[in-house]
Amino acid sequence: MRMRKKPNLPKRLERCAGMILEEPTAYCGKWLSTFGGSQLHLEIGAGKGKFLVETAKENPDIFFVGIEREEGALVVAAEKAIAAGLSNIRFLDVDAVNLPDFFATGELDRIYLNFSDPWPKKKQWKRRLTYRSFLSLYWDALKADGAIFQKTDNQKLFEFSLNEFSEVGYRLKNITFDLHATDTPNIMTEYETRFTELGMPIYRTEAYKQETKRT
Amino acid sequence: MRMRKKPNLPKRLERCAGMILEEPTAYCGKWLSTFGGSQLHLEIGAGKGKFLVETAKENPDIFFVGIEREEGALVVAAEKAIAAGLSNIRFLDVDAVNLPDFFATGELDRIYLNFSDPWPKKKQWKRRLTYRSFLSLYWDALKADGAIFQKTDNQKLFEFSLNEFSEVGYRLKNITFDLHATDTPNIMTEYETRFTELGMPIYRTEAYKQETKRT
Repeated sequence: MRMRKKPNLPKRLERCAGMILEEPTAYCGKWLSTFGGSQLHLEIGAGKGKFLVETAKENPDIFFVGIEREEGALVVAAEKAIAAGLSNIRFLDVDAVNLPDFFATGELDRIYLNFSDPWPKKKQWKRRLTYRSFLSLYWDALKADGAIFQKTDNQKLFEFSLNEFSEVGYRLKNITFDLHATDTPNIMTEYETRFTELGMPIYRTEAYKQETKRT
Repeated sequence: MRMRKKPNLPKRLERCAGMILEEPTAYCGKWLSTFGGSQLHLEIGAGKGKFLVETAKENPDIFFVGIEREEGALVVAAEKAIAAGLSNIRFLDVDAVNLPDFFATGELDRIYLNFSDPWPKKKQWKRRLTYRSFLSLYWDALKADGAIFQKTDNQKLFEFSLNEFSEVGYRLKNITFDLHATDTPNIMTEYETRFTELGMPIYRTEAYKQETKRT
């Protein structure tokens, strides 16, 4: 989402120093030994941070990293985390394509993809965060029992994502076409609140790296 | 689908002798050596046979077996196959739960599940033809590169099926939430024609037995 230029953005970003990490490559392979925590969770496209900040509040034992390219949103997310007095969360202004620079092989326990850009035109599909080349990067960054949790309101993106997950070898679990009709515990994103008020169903799946086992 | 009792049903069934096999256990492990053909495809719940008869017409090199419990539908299917002069198709009035009695381990190339009964109540889910115990029977009956092709108009059944396929270890491919919006070659069933006229989307997936491979 494009946001209007905010004239006081540089000052606000400055005040968030410490919450938005400037040199994230320095933590590659060392996130938990630097910041503490029993698990490392990453949200790619954290937006204004509602989901990640609330999730971090509820899980003080887990360390959370949020990636967001849009500075206007990033600063809101960082301000939220600071206002909540959280020490188990940090944000990065980086591109998902450079993930291996920030996370070592097998370092992540979980990746959240919430309401990612659907890139509707076919020639843009390679930019979708569930395109197979991204899923391959995630695969390497995830632990053996790690997983990707995806939510979206976009049926076409969801359909595409299920096929890509399966193609790359992830094991799908808890696929739902109407998240809010289930009893899955759920923290809503900013977008999700709006879409849900409009009565739109939310699609969700979990994609596990673990080996396929026959029951 | 329940059909009205047809008083002339026994006579019609009699006329289809040869097309509806009375002792299908006799062919277990011997379908292709008995009837010929390069592949063996099975439809579970063949209904009035439109899909399977048209598919058999288009693929004279493949041998097709259709299972249907409803005699009123079964006889229509058999009559269609006879009218079309097909030799590469037979029907059985048997229960899918007894599949191992009719098909040897690794004997099937493909299984079609078209518009199966959605059994909407939770305590009926074990009767769904994509419940894990059925998927496990199919797994054994399928060749190593075999697959299940499923179509349905029922979103809840489809959601359930994707989870069950994944749970049992099938690899999903070509998942679509709107079959008729794709260019997938498609032969319509009786139900499908009606649903499509009503503008309802058709869900479809392929579930492969083959090992998960990373791209």
